[in-house]
Amino acid sequence: MKRELLVENPRPDGYHLMMELYGCDPEKINSRKFLHQVVKNAVKQVGLTNLGSRFHQFDPQGVTGFTLLAQSHISLHTWPEYGYLVLDIFTCGDQHQADLLAEHFLKRLRPDRVNRQVMRKGYQYFRD
Amino acid sequence: MKRELLVENPRPDGYHLMMELYGCDPEKINSRKFLHQVVKNAVKQVGLTNLGSRFHQFDPQGVTGFTLLAQSHISLHTWPEYGYLVLDIFTCGDQHQADLLAEHFLKRLRPDRVNRQVMRKGYQYFRD
Repeated sequence: MKRELLVENPRPDGYHLMMELYGCDPEKINSRKFLHQVVKNAVKQVGLTNLGSRFHQFDPQGVTGFTLLAQSHISLHTWPEYGYLVLDIFTCGDQHQADLLAEHFLKRLRPDRVNRQVMRKGYQYFRD
Repeated sequence: MKRELLVENPRPDGYHLMMELYGCDPEKINSRKFLHQVVKNAVKQVGLTNLGSRFHQFDPQGVTGFTLLAQSHISLHTWPEYGYLVLDIFTCGDQHQADLLAEHFLKRLRPDRVNRQVMRKGYQYFRD
């Protein structure tokens, strides 16, 4: 836990971007190392604050992982046997950063098809 | 990463339970220790497999945390100044376990009001 990264907790205007990626390269999405690196690079490029990760490799296949951000979280779960990856990006604050992060993912993973949905959370506090 | 907990990756029939808890006790939801304990106990009671967590305390207030499960994940983000907590429980497999886990949370946190939504993921694989 990187205590030096403490930030003031922002307002609860959550932007939860949920993506399902179909037709991914099974080899890529079965690599814990590759996926962790994609997340780390994306977080850095977009300028979000990484508070630490857990990534796990399943036997015989599949990876599951998350990265905690000062601005909320990223999680992913993969099923290489289906070429299928579930990605969640939850940010409070700058929605643009979440979208950029998603773009970075798609560029690296090049799925055949993407299902994308957005949930807003805490939005009733916008005008407090 | 507890390697001894390796399990075979199940089918991608994801059940994503998203809850927003309003009117929580600010003291409780500002305690990293309390929230981490609630998650750990809930996971254990429900019989899910804990692969590790990250919980972070913000200054001046707020907690953000994540527990990775063999069956997917739990995340929470709190805004004690609003008595507000965002909880995500994502499981693949037994939907009943996710609901039980949510019940455990609500019993411990006793919010005034709850917003609850469910997203299904990967359901097109059900009949493969």
